[in-house]
Amino acid sequence: MYDGDIFKEYLDVSPEVQEALGSGMPVVALESTIISHGMPYPKNAETALEVEALIRKTGAVPATIAVLGGRLKAGLSETEIDYLGKTGERVIKSSRRDIPFIVAKGLDGATTVSATMIIADLAGIKIFVTGGIGGVHRFAQESFDISADLQELARTDVAVVCAGPKSILDIPLTLEYLETQGVPVVGYGTGELPAFFTRESGLPVDWRVDTPEELAKALFAKWNLGIHGGILVANPIPEKDSMAKSDIDVVIETALKTAADQGVKGKAITPFLLAHIVELSGGKSLEANINLVKNNARLGAKLAAAYADLVNPVQSV
Amino acid sequence: MYDGDIFKEYLDVSPEVQEALGSGMPVVALESTIISHGMPYPKNAETALEVEALIRKTGAVPATIAVLGGRLKAGLSETEIDYLGKTGERVIKSSRRDIPFIVAKGLDGATTVSATMIIADLAGIKIFVTGGIGGVHRFAQESFDISADLQELARTDVAVVCAGPKSILDIPLTLEYLETQGVPVVGYGTGELPAFFTRESGLPVDWRVDTPEELAKALFAKWNLGIHGGILVANPIPEKDSMAKSDIDVVIETALKTAADQGVKGKAITPFLLAHIVELSGGKSLEANINLVKNNARLGAKLAAAYADLVNPVQSV
Amino acid sequence: MYDGDIFKEYLDVSPEVQEALGSGMPVVALESTIISHGMPYPKNAETALEVEALIRKTGAVPATIAVLGGRLKAGLSETEIDYLGKTGERVIKSSRRDIPFIVAKGLDGATTVSATMIIADLAGIKIFVTGGIGGVHRFAQESFDISADLQELARTDVAVVCAGPKSILDIPLTLEYLETQGVPVVGYGTGELPAFFTRESGLPVDWRVDTPEELAKALFAKWNLGIHGGILVANPIPEKDSMAKSDIDVVIETALKTAADQGVKGKAITPFLLAHIVELSGGKSLEANINLVKNNARLGAKLAAAYADLVNPVQSV
Ligand SMILES: [Mn+2]
Ligand SMILES: [Mn+2]
Ligand SMILES: [Mn+2]
Repeated sequence: MYDGDIFKEYLDVSPEVQEALGSGMPVVALESTIISHGMPYPKNAETALEVEALIRKTGAVPATIAVLGGRLKAGLSETEIDYLGKTGERVIKSSRRDIPFIVAKGLDGATTVSATMIIADLAGIKIFVTGGIGGVHRFAQESFDISADLQELARTDVAVVCAGPKSILDIPLTLEYLETQGVPVVGYGTGELPAFFTRESGLPVDWRVDTPEELAKALFAKWNLGIHGGILVANPIPEKDSMAKSDIDVVIETALKTAADQGVKGKAITPFLLAHIVELSGGKSLEANINLVKNNARLGAKLAAAYADLVNPVQSV
Repeated sequence: MYDGDIFKEYLDVSPEVQEALGSGMPVVALESTIISHGMPYPKNAETALEVEALIRKTGAVPATIAVLGGRLKAGLSETEIDYLGKTGERVIKSSRRDIPFIVAKGLDGATTVSATMIIADLAGIKIFVTGGIGGVHRFAQESFDISADLQELARTDVAVVCAGPKSILDIPLTLEYLETQGVPVVGYGTGELPAFFTRESGLPVDWRVDTPEELAKALFAKWNLGIHGGILVANPIPEKDSMAKSDIDVVIETALKTAADQGVKGKAITPFLLAHIVELSGGKSLEANINLVKNNARLGAKLAAAYADLVNPVQSV
Repeated sequence: MYDGDIFKEYLDVSPEVQEALGSGMPVVALESTIISHGMPYPKNAETALEVEALIRKTGAVPATIAVLGGRLKAGLSETEIDYLGKTGERVIKSSRRDIPFIVAKGLDGATTVSATMIIADLAGIKIFVTGGIGGVHRFAQESFDISADLQELARTDVAVVCAGPKSILDIPLTLEYLETQGVPVVGYGTGELPAFFTRESGLPVDWRVDTPEELAKALFAKWNLGIHGGILVANPIPEKDSMAKSDIDVVIETALKTAADQGVKGKAITPFLLAHIVELSGGKSLEANINLVKNNARLGAKLAAAYADLVNPVQSV
């Protein structure tokens, strides 16, 4: 994927990331919507830097992805991360459809899962760590509200390490959609799909893996065979930060009932549910969110290392 | 995309179009279903030639697309356009799935949006002008009736300039579908999606652009970055030809009620709605349809010129 | 598609198949789920060998597809076919999402339609014969239960010869889905889509063809033009083995009513319907199933021969 022209024309790879990629060292992509839209400043920038530090400590190089002044970025400086954190929701949340316009207009964009996958793939980064992913929304049977993340997983060759889809989504429909699209859903150390704040969903994953090496081997086989698309790696939230599925279910049921009573319908139900979940978990949800991202970062770094060993077998000798 | 073999084997590019493409001049693709299936003869052929003339006058070369005797055509002669107009609905309306059979059987095919995009892309033409596009039909939640145009937009690298989806479609579902597929929906000179006969839909576009240059830059970035698929450019019908959304809404509501009373269901509802809309607008709808296509042709020609300037920057010096 | 590395790394092509492909002889791919999961032992292995013999007799080389010990296989030995038949449902039923894991873990996998298409395409085999295909399940409007076979048809360049979708599926929705995806549905010798045990569905196909040559020409045009994806060739079950649509409809209606009474819902309805259909046809259904596969094998072999003549025109001189 190292296309000299694209580099020059549109993409800036930071010196640290460029050196790592050039020498076959493991690199982990990180998204930037979590910085600008996911947490209050300065907690967002601090967390982003902590996650980067953790990846370095685990032996890989972090590449936070964003668009700044119309330039695609793989690898941000501390100043750039702070800028995204401080600017917050004024940075444009960008998915696949937005990249061409953010670039053409020379704007700043915080990348969602889909946009981060695209830019990571352009830069030659195959492992991407985030918190959760978008999915099929509740009542999508009526509204067709399905995150572009799922189609991105269907086509772009990047592994997404997350803590599973959020409970506000329709998780069974999300799994059906991914099955139809041929996207593998993998449980790390578990046969049950985790669901972000909870380790339980009551639903099985397609495959359970227990080591980064085992997973790296599957990624390596997939892409070498030209079986395009991503893999969803679902890594359960650490036990100490997790909520019980039954507690979340009660909140969701109550919120859905309130929504129905108040005539809230269609797409409006999602933010409604989200607000209720945050309320339930109180201040704890921010900390849990940070901890699950760090947990994913550790796994992502190990996975990137195992994958790099397969791509550059000489290094492991 | 200039593959010598495909040219020889299946595709005839007219001398005028071939010369334009070879010298980096702007070219605009046009579909042929509007000729054979969209209007009565001879109005259909006359309009097609007027639209071609308008594109030439605006500084680009028109390439009307069709399949004749099993040969893919990019650029038709006046005689060929007249033939399609005269033959009318006996020409096979052809979309992606039909091309291989029309070719293998040596038949004539009038190309829909999806087939026109494919043939334009094969010929190396990136800007395509039409009236409206297919979308998600009303009650598609039950019927799964979703135009192949949307999947074509999801994968084929051609910009489609139109006046927006028709009001008989389910426009909110159409936008959701395109969002999931990562297809940008752009308003030209407007932040509100136009809906064919009306300039209003009550729904926002993803991006507003106000000049052909701005839009060309986004197309150029998209395809250079390998972000495959089309862009939907929605250009509002000229004010003087437009209907009020409220008038159309009343017709649709009444027609839907009548359909329900008469037990008309599923896919049968679409032609039912279409007939009622035409009835409402009386003779005016044909003229309005022609005027919006011409309006799109003017924009398409300017967009093609701006795009050609980016592809061949020397020319603009 | 003959990539030396992939061959060495992941894919074993049997000597017979390798020789045929190398010399431009017709080759027909066969799936292995029908062996391990479709029939009881030893009937399953016997049938697989009979189908292979029939393909040889009709002038083509059979390539049964599977994954054994993590190696992709195009062409199995008698011993390997017997092993799959004897091991039965303990072999993992594998679709697109499973291949990377079966390979990485060194497991055995019986390939479904989607996985067989992928491996056939990797090996350079363009014609694939099976019994029926997956589709949109009844009540998929609610459950989103849609077979990965349909997305595979949307992207992988292999023609699938079958007897049509099973009546337990929602056939109108399956056709709508394929239309949206641009996948041609072809009737062999019929303008009506057959539906596995019955020659009738009441629904039209997109195209009727009456000779293998005509169909081969369409495949050849499609893939040469870069119009990616498969073609669904629906070959009606032989008259003598067929059931009447009206008989099947009664069973399905009754079963659906029973399901509703018993509170059986969503995905659970499919196996419920399947059991009732098998019960209706009694012992006859196994024989009918075998006969329709053989009928498809004969057509597939002729189609592969006609296609090989187009790819290697010298041979037909
Ligand atoms: Mn959405
Ligand atoms: Mn349709
Ligand atoms: Mn399913």
